[in-house]
Amino acid sequence: MRATFREQLDTLRGSLVVMGSDVTSAMRWATRSLLEGELEPASRCIETAAAIRDRREEIEEAVVMLLVRQQPVASDLRLALASMRVAGDFERMGALAEHVAKIMLLRHPVTAVPPEVAEVARQMAAIAEQLAWKVTGVLETGDAALAAQLDTDDDEMDELHRQMFEVLFGNWQHDVKSAVDAALLARFYERYADHAVNAAQQVVYLITGVSPANQD
Amino acid sequence: MRATFREQLDTLRGSLVVMGSDVTSAMRWATRSLLEGELEPASRCIETAAAIRDRREEIEEAVVMLLVRQQPVASDLRLALASMRVAGDFERMGALAEHVAKIMLLRHPVTAVPPEVAEVARQMAAIAEQLAWKVTGVLETGDAALAAQLDTDDDEMDELHRQMFEVLFGNWQHDVKSAVDAALLARFYERYADHAVNAAQQVVYLITGVSPANQD
Repeated sequence: MRATFREQLDTLRGSLVVMGSDVTSAMRWATRSLLEGELEPASRCIETAAAIRDRREEIEEAVVMLLVRQQPVASDLRLALASMRVAGDFERMGALAEHVAKIMLLRHPVTAVPPEVAEVARQMAAIAEQLAWKVTGVLETGDAALAAQLDTDDDEMDELHRQMFEVLFGNWQHDVKSAVDAALLARFYERYADHAVNAAQQVVYLITGVSPANQD
Repeated sequence: MRATFREQLDTLRGSLVVMGSDVTSAMRWATRSLLEGELEPASRCIETAAAIRDRREEIEEAVVMLLVRQQPVASDLRLALASMRVAGDFERMGALAEHVAKIMLLRHPVTAVPPEVAEVARQMAAIAEQLAWKVTGVLETGDAALAAQLDTDDDEMDELHRQMFEVLFGNWQHDVKSAVDAALLARFYERYADHAVNAAQQVVYLITGVSPANQD
């Protein structure tokens, strides 16, 4: 019985890999549209976010059916719930990518990122994408060591977030609208990173059985 | 077996009522500190948000134990997961109240809400608190009709959110920092409302068995 349960959880992990890859693409497209002013990647981001929402529902339904059929022991049950949580974090990451794309669309053809903040935004975006890519990698390869890098990446993200606000609260030469946009964009990238870190803790739990509270 | 399961779910609902009441208080304190410039409610908000986080963990653990002991049928399993989701939304609402309190603390003794936006902020806060109070009421009384009001409240919240941005993007007389603060505060109140609406859908499901997709 337990072997079958674990096998089915592995199948679920495969669905999460696809979802993680979509989440990474969604933010990549959002960022490209934001920084390059291209409309098409923004639409692709929005479509992908919708697909990610559907996939989350599928995964939750699969977990429910798995739990009903297999009546797992507590440790296996916790693993199934961890898969659900990863899907939940991924859905939020997709929604945050969509928020980035929508800010771009609202301001187009004017850019939402004036030159003074474009570089910080670019760096935040790069780290966001890297985080999503690494979580997906951990899911795919089971390499928990890779997950340990995520905290360092997240620290860099926090530092960039601070830098963004320093620029905004310094001698800002643009209008209030662009300052508010930049602040919200910074928040979206930062929240995306937070969810990636949360997801990674659950993924490590899925792979090693070490609970998030005991991971260091 | 099923009766016991439902009884235990009702006990869980009691814990969710306490949590909902804390979530309402947390935002009330955050708002009071924000609008009245008082420090003490901000600390109470932050303490309460921490207690809410702990309570979420307790509820999740209780759900896991319930599922393991009772091996429920699919419909009961879904109800247990709905309880977990409510706890998850409540935790986020506590965290958002904490964000409001922290913006107040960051700017103190200067107010984070200049007179031009104080009234909109006050109205957003009132609706946010009302939403949390109503969800808690539905949990406590089982009155699903009350839940139907939440969508209207949420529409008002969206309208206030638009008003806030109109003021900020109009002829803003203050510095960029206060515009960014107001924009973030508006987002925190709005997200708090969104989570209340999500929680209410799950609560209606808990009480009536009608899934969120079929609620109107």
